[in-house]
Amino acid sequence: MQTVASLLEAHRSGLRSVSDTVRGVYARLAVHDDPAMFITLREEADVLAEAAALEAAGNTDLPLYGVPVAVKDNIDVAGLPTTAACPAFAYVPERDATVVARLKAAGALIIGKTNLDQFATGLVGVRSPYGIPRNSVNPELVPGGSSSGSAVAVGAGIVPVSLGTDTAGSGRVPAMLNNIVGLKPSLGLVPNTGLVPACKTLDCISIFALTVDDAMAVLNVIAGFDEQDAYSRDLPVGPLTAAPPAPVLGILPEAQREFFGDAESAAAYEEALARFAALGAVLKAIDFSAFAETARLLYEGPWVAERWIAAEHLLTTDPDAVHPVTRAITEPGGKASAADAFRAMYKLKELRARVAPILAGIDGLLLPTAPSAYTVEEVLADPIRLNSRNGTYTNFVNLMDLCGIAVPTKITAAGVPYGITLLAPAGKDAEMAALGRAFVAAGTLPLGCGHAPAPALPALAPASEPGRLDVCVFGAHLSGMPLNGDLKAMGARFVRAAKTVPSYRMKLLPGAIPRPGVVRVTADGAAVEGEVWSLPFEGIGRLLATIPAPLGLGQVELDDGSRVTGFLAEAAALEGARDITQFGSFRAFAAAAE
Amino acid sequence: MQTVASLLEAHRSGLRSVSDTVRGVYARLAVHDDPAMFITLREEADVLAEAAALEAAGNTDLPLYGVPVAVKDNIDVAGLPTTAACPAFAYVPERDATVVARLKAAGALIIGKTNLDQFATGLVGVRSPYGIPRNSVNPELVPGGSSSGSAVAVGAGIVPVSLGTDTAGSGRVPAMLNNIVGLKPSLGLVPNTGLVPACKTLDCISIFALTVDDAMAVLNVIAGFDEQDAYSRDLPVGPLTAAPPAPVLGILPEAQREFFGDAESAAAYEEALARFAALGAVLKAIDFSAFAETARLLYEGPWVAERWIAAEHLLTTDPDAVHPVTRAITEPGGKASAADAFRAMYKLKELRARVAPILAGIDGLLLPTAPSAYTVEEVLADPIRLNSRNGTYTNFVNLMDLCGIAVPTKITAAGVPYGITLLAPAGKDAEMAALGRAFVAAGTLPLGCGHAPAPALPALAPASEPGRLDVCVFGAHLSGMPLNGDLKAMGARFVRAAKTVPSYRMKLLPGAIPRPGVVRVTADGAAVEGEVWSLPFEGIGRLLATIPAPLGLGQVELDDGSRVTGFLAEAAALEGARDITQFGSFRAFAAAAE
Repeated sequence: MQTVASLLEAHRSGLRSVSDTVRGVYARLAVHDDPAMFITLREEADVLAEAAALEAAGNTDLPLYGVPVAVKDNIDVAGLPTTAACPAFAYVPERDATVVARLKAAGALIIGKTNLDQFATGLVGVRSPYGIPRNSVNPELVPGGSSSGSAVAVGAGIVPVSLGTDTAGSGRVPAMLNNIVGLKPSLGLVPNTGLVPACKTLDCISIFALTVDDAMAVLNVIAGFDEQDAYSRDLPVGPLTAAPPAPVLGILPEAQREFFGDAESAAAYEEALARFAALGAVLKAIDFSAFAETARLLYEGPWVAERWIAAEHLLTTDPDAVHPVTRAITEPGGKASAADAFRAMYKLKELRARVAPILAGIDGLLLPTAPSAYTVEEVLADPIRLNSRNGTYTNFVNLMDLCGIAVPTKITAAGVPYGITLLAPAGKDAEMAALGRAFVAAGTLPLGCGHAPAPALPALAPASEPGRLDVCVFGAHLSGMPLNGDLKAMGARFVRAAKTVPSYRMKLLPGAIPRPGVVRVTADGAAVEGEVWSLPFEGIGRLLATIPAPLGLGQVELDDGSRVTGFLAEAAALEGARDITQFGSFRAFAAAAE
Repeated sequence: MQTVASLLEAHRSGLRSVSDTVRGVYARLAVHDDPAMFITLREEADVLAEAAALEAAGNTDLPLYGVPVAVKDNIDVAGLPTTAACPAFAYVPERDATVVARLKAAGALIIGKTNLDQFATGLVGVRSPYGIPRNSVNPELVPGGSSSGSAVAVGAGIVPVSLGTDTAGSGRVPAMLNNIVGLKPSLGLVPNTGLVPACKTLDCISIFALTVDDAMAVLNVIAGFDEQDAYSRDLPVGPLTAAPPAPVLGILPEAQREFFGDAESAAAYEEALARFAALGAVLKAIDFSAFAETARLLYEGPWVAERWIAAEHLLTTDPDAVHPVTRAITEPGGKASAADAFRAMYKLKELRARVAPILAGIDGLLLPTAPSAYTVEEVLADPIRLNSRNGTYTNFVNLMDLCGIAVPTKITAAGVPYGITLLAPAGKDAEMAALGRAFVAAGTLPLGCGHAPAPALPALAPASEPGRLDVCVFGAHLSGMPLNGDLKAMGARFVRAAKTVPSYRMKLLPGAIPRPGVVRVTADGAAVEGEVWSLPFEGIGRLLATIPAPLGLGQVELDDGSRVTGFLAEAAALEGARDITQFGSFRAFAAAAE
């Protein structure tokens, strides 16, 4: 299977021309023979002409130089019809969507527009008048949706990367079902200019790729503020680094695992947990109920009104032009009241407040991507209920403003692919990718529908540089704690777990966010566990500007004989405060307090 | 007029007892004789009993020790009815609103519940079955609303501070009309637990006071995260500092100034601009059109559905129990569709994207608080149109997630008060207060309805520059001392001499270069002199890398009320070290040692 990385290497070294790469795409398409994959496939000659122009320009440093890309047909490519899988809706845009313009400027070649569940409403890939794209791993299974064509194009090795969209899980469920990576960026990180809306407040352009590195390469090209998109946010994409040695991952407690009777899926989740544990992750069962309640809000609540707005013209003037299942789902959206909408928003706000402390206590959520894998036959027989089940672990994600990445876990002996998704609050895209990358690297799956083992991954850049200072943290800045994100925003990188010499006490400071104060004592001292993070000098200043009294940065003596800068509290302010030294670490205290 | 500051001084010095203060409140109320100011006034004897208990406890350090406060009657005070100015809606809460609980814990005494435009819908103060509170400056004018009673109570000098609420301008318009300060905090900074909603997504508890300092003193008490309120945000209240020397203020261009023919108001705005220019501000005309369009969304758009939700039970079961004007405004909210709501949210998002670059280019917006000041007679004759005009410069503020402070500009010869409001994105509450404080100090107005000039204000520490941090040094880094050159090499600039509050000790650390260690103590503290130097963030990291144990950088409390980063030592390391506190400064110690 060709990856972005292997193609770039071949193109830059001259081992393969971009034109040959294009010819390869069309040759594979002919062999694969799935008429439902693309709604509009460009003429090979047109793409070859672009390839020739690219070669003539010779700018081989372009980050996607000569990489063929497929684009979901709800994203505008100038000159090609945008159908959203509804012929009556089709128009031919004059301008590229911002993401497409960025892909082209980065040297990518757009091959065509892929099939989807109509108006991106669905998680199955069978709701399209353009046919059902063939699952690339197991033709009996649904391809997954709504980004069906984009997912099977990558899974089948036609193109190494493609664009999907993801409102309820359309960029993740099809990734699982095709044994590929599905990166769902933070809302607003990738601009939506030129996208047909599904739910305008929740839509997200997503990336399918064979590897996490490829997905991140594309994300780095298409992410970034766009003043034409009011929902665009000025978020940075962090660097893809090695995963931290002991990430805290929130997992489903036994009682809240729902696989709808699919024992293989349940076993696959167990295997994923075991693999992460073997990688050093701390698995922490969390209460999933508020997430589940949020997931139900998406289709049972007023957000369906957004889907109704997107298709309003057709629904009111030519309802028969809309797919019957899409219509059945969308039409109630036109009847909801503004009061319903505000009440649902109040509810969502409450649910987000409920999950905030859960998310603050972990580095990421580790969930099944979908609870099961249904066949085309099953879904056609029960189209709404089985589709709805597919969203069990995806529907809440954009309502909660999370980012995530879906990666494959296994393919069963019967040929059924399962996967997990890592999720965290917006802005942690690169962190989730780093976790997903480590997980995949520790497995043995081939890429997509292929059979060869996945290529070895390059080692990622190490830490330590001049102009940085190691800082030992003991409380809210620890991995997974509420202020760890602030630390990372200041450029911090995890170095190691650490323990002081037995000369300290730890007490609990008052305040909204529970924080410990560590202080050196002359008698009755104990060791306190913390973490050493490396910060750039400039970040130290920014950090210190945020530290309230009685906390400060002093010198902490560690049990390995070293001294590092670290958080200390003023002794005078701790008189009378609750002593929590016996817990050994703030993490242990926080766990006991729950 | 009694201010919070003057009351605290009198209470703490023993010049006046808290009980006398309470008696004064009731005596002034009797003289003032406005039956429409309070909906529920507590019995004097009950408040006196609380005052006696407070005096007996003797905790005079409480930040609002013995300060009488009036509370708008849509905020719960345990045991007193909450009416929202609608008798049929009334209930008696068992628990205090979070803000009320915080006020009480800070030593404040709640006097009663004030009148308001019913359900906080209105900017005039005439929409209440409990009568029209009398404007404290000019009885012909409306009191302003919806926080009518709270504003006139402060303007008339009955209490020095009160709580209002502000969804569309209810905490600002009445401030202007009563020649007082109206502080509208950032959304979520002050928790809404125990507040009757108007528009739950936009409601904000606000503060009326005679001075900016008093308003900030109350804000510091009531602000802070509340896990019971899903809309609560964990925002810091910055320190109240001196205004920056040359703030860039966005002002209305000539063509977009709308005073509805009120030439006095136009002239007052010009005077405010001139006063700010004289203070060094850079006045920058901005395009107000997107703000104006947002203002219209509030009542023309679906947010009225939130008001309908708040009064739904009455509107659907007993509509005659609702004030006819309130009903006329609120009832359409029950008819709006969810699609309308989402469309309006898309529109708002676009408008926010349009104003983002405008706000990024200024330190704050400088606008009239209201375009004109109408009489009771005028408003009763034209209740909806004139009310709507009052919101010209206030309605957009919460939709845009801004914070602000309304301060008085002038009272005309005819006795009509005008004011301006300073606005900036959420989180800049203290910055706007600093600007408003400087503006008021440069004027000559009395407080509220009083005639004596406003008291002189204490000097405040200057704000630090962005990207830099002030650091208080006490030892070898002082000007002319051995390590001062190192400090300068890190980019440090001298800011000022400084002195701590009398809560520290200074001891001599061992070592080749004599260095002091300053530490906070709980008893026998003294003031220590030092110097404040400004360092770039990057220099802070370099500095910290050179500091040996037991020294570190923490937060030092200075005698001007400010807190700055500064050198502190670990208390445990100073046991047995020579105490040199009596020298007052390390410089004095060094001189004596020579």
